[in-house]
Amino acid sequence: MPGPRPAPEPTASEAAALRLAVDAAERVRGTTSPNPPVGAVILDESGAVVGVGATSPVGGPHAEVMALRAAGSRARGGTAVVTLEPCNHQGRTGPCALALIEAGVSRVLFAVDDPHPQAAGGAQTLRSAGVDVLSGFGARDVELGPLRAWLHRQRTGRSHVTWKFAASLDGRSAAADGTSQWITGPEARARVHRERAKLDAIVVGTGTVLADDPWLTARTPDGGLADHQPVRVVVGEREIPASARVLDDAAPTLVLRTRDPLEVVAALADLPDVLLEGGPHLAGAFLEAGLVDRILAFLSPVLLGAGAAAVEDAGVTNIAQALRFHRESVETLGPDLLLSLTPGDRGVGAEDENEDNSTNN
Amino acid sequence: MPGPRPAPEPTASEAAALRLAVDAAERVRGTTSPNPPVGAVILDESGAVVGVGATSPVGGPHAEVMALRAAGSRARGGTAVVTLEPCNHQGRTGPCALALIEAGVSRVLFAVDDPHPQAAGGAQTLRSAGVDVLSGFGARDVELGPLRAWLHRQRTGRSHVTWKFAASLDGRSAAADGTSQWITGPEARARVHRERAKLDAIVVGTGTVLADDPWLTARTPDGGLADHQPVRVVVGEREIPASARVLDDAAPTLVLRTRDPLEVVAALADLPDVLLEGGPHLAGAFLEAGLVDRILAFLSPVLLGAGAAAVEDAGVTNIAQALRFHRESVETLGPDLLLSLTPGDRGVGAEDENEDNSTNN
Repeated sequence: MPGPRPAPEPTASEAAALRLAVDAAERVRGTTSPNPPVGAVILDESGAVVGVGATSPVGGPHAEVMALRAAGSRARGGTAVVTLEPCNHQGRTGPCALALIEAGVSRVLFAVDDPHPQAAGGAQTLRSAGVDVLSGFGARDVELGPLRAWLHRQRTGRSHVTWKFAASLDGRSAAADGTSQWITGPEARARVHRERAKLDAIVVGTGTVLADDPWLTARTPDGGLADHQPVRVVVGEREIPASARVLDDAAPTLVLRTRDPLEVVAALADLPDVLLEGGPHLAGAFLEAGLVDRILAFLSPVLLGAGAAAVEDAGVTNIAQALRFHRESVETLGPDLLLSLTPGDRGVGAEDENEDNSTNN
Repeated sequence: MPGPRPAPEPTASEAAALRLAVDAAERVRGTTSPNPPVGAVILDESGAVVGVGATSPVGGPHAEVMALRAAGSRARGGTAVVTLEPCNHQGRTGPCALALIEAGVSRVLFAVDDPHPQAAGGAQTLRSAGVDVLSGFGARDVELGPLRAWLHRQRTGRSHVTWKFAASLDGRSAAADGTSQWITGPEARARVHRERAKLDAIVVGTGTVLADDPWLTARTPDGGLADHQPVRVVVGEREIPASARVLDDAAPTLVLRTRDPLEVVAALADLPDVLLEGGPHLAGAFLEAGLVDRILAFLSPVLLGAGAAAVEDAGVTNIAQALRFHRESVETLGPDLLLSLTPGDRGVGAEDENEDNSTNN
């Protein structure tokens, strides 16, 4: 969307500032609901960072206001770099677009357009006030990063569900005797805990509670509880004992007497960022229902040759019905791999080029 | 091993020449047995490439001689870059060390010392003749690359066994109804065929022959037979029909009436580079016997939720007995991942640092 006059391309300082803003947003992810976790950075006229801010918990200032407060008068003539289009509406706090204009900022870069009908229009307000506005820069990092769940909910009306599993190379989440501690190494496990600390909810089936009696808390590397704990959600029709660890007072717990993925997702509508942790049949039901928006697969370079599979009964009987995913990223975590995947076309095989059966087996 | 005077470090031209030599060796891999697949490059005095050579089939010239022939008189005062220590013995062909001295080469770089007692000593012969010698440069690329199987056999006395499998993210090699074409995409399948064309033998169980009736040939992208075909080896006690594709005349086939991995490996002693392709129980038996030297795992971003696992019965019942591997490399092949893994410590868990049960579930 070009403004009245074309805004120049982002400078190296502005690109670095967006990275800082994404990091700031990531740090408050999980604490801002129902507001989006946003990051903002103010650069002074020379391009130096003079303020960094992120969304406060609900009722508190937005990211831009936090960053402007830190910058003070150094914002005048400077640039604001924000992960989301500055809001235009008078909600619990004043509109950020107006705050930026009042602070004398002469240029605003933001990554993602605000899809929220009440909040959108900030870019236009800024342009009308003579501010240079550039949008879309770094949008992918923000859309796949801190704003992922919030944008998903704005667009689809339902929570974003990440299914996380840890498995051996032969796809097993436990050995033949049920032992599973530990398939993955400490780096992968620490990553799971960091991720949990930014979520709204963790979902497991009653079978997992009965078999493993997990705490489902987010822990810091020293074993303490993280500042933010997601709601623990136990789904299924079986009773769980009152002594189950998941019912302790380390975090809130919701017990849903259903294992229908649609009912579960409906019940979690106010918890936009949901992690599904298992077991294999619950994962299969969510996958079959098309309610997995991302997979985080922690794969360990281990073979078991027996034991429970990571997923069962996903509604697939023929290879042509295979649930296919796009690879979003691959990371190494110590000995393990972490694959991030998003849903692909259902039941469509990979493209064949110059291949027939005879060339392949 | 410092020579009489210290040889200077490799130049950029020499580093590039080693890369060329590795590629040349890789191109003849599978065709040189019992000789090792070696590559050699001659640089003239100015550092320009004037000859590239690789080991000929048995009875023909070694790599150094092939490269010297291409270089002619331009070798004088130049440098030879070779993947393996030039041989010192009068075998079917003359000693390469002597050929290099006679050609007037003033410097020799080689990657890997010759472990063969009869052939070793080339470096000393060269040094005694006043040639600068530098060894060990790029050794890892050669040891994990073209000389991998040959070195393994020199060191252990048995063939190098690579177990290759293709599986979904949930570790299944077929859907519930047995269909498996195709879990992986065309890039991964083409890679399997390129790999087959460099091998000495491909091993499958009778179960795989009965279920899938594979050809087990190496094919080019246009579907034709590759120039070099590995020996097809069918192991197990079940009868296979005379009409099985694996018994056609596209390549030699060996039927072994055993499925004991030790007996299989003993029978293949003259075929140093062996690919084990399945099925899951045969793979489990080789893994349990500790006879898998490398795993090539083709992992597709697909979920099945049912169907045969890639490996069964590997002798593991508890997570503490898990077969652990080291990640040698990870590649993306279109939508798929290719992991190359080598055996790790058996039954030893990943190191735990500041972790206890309470922090991890």
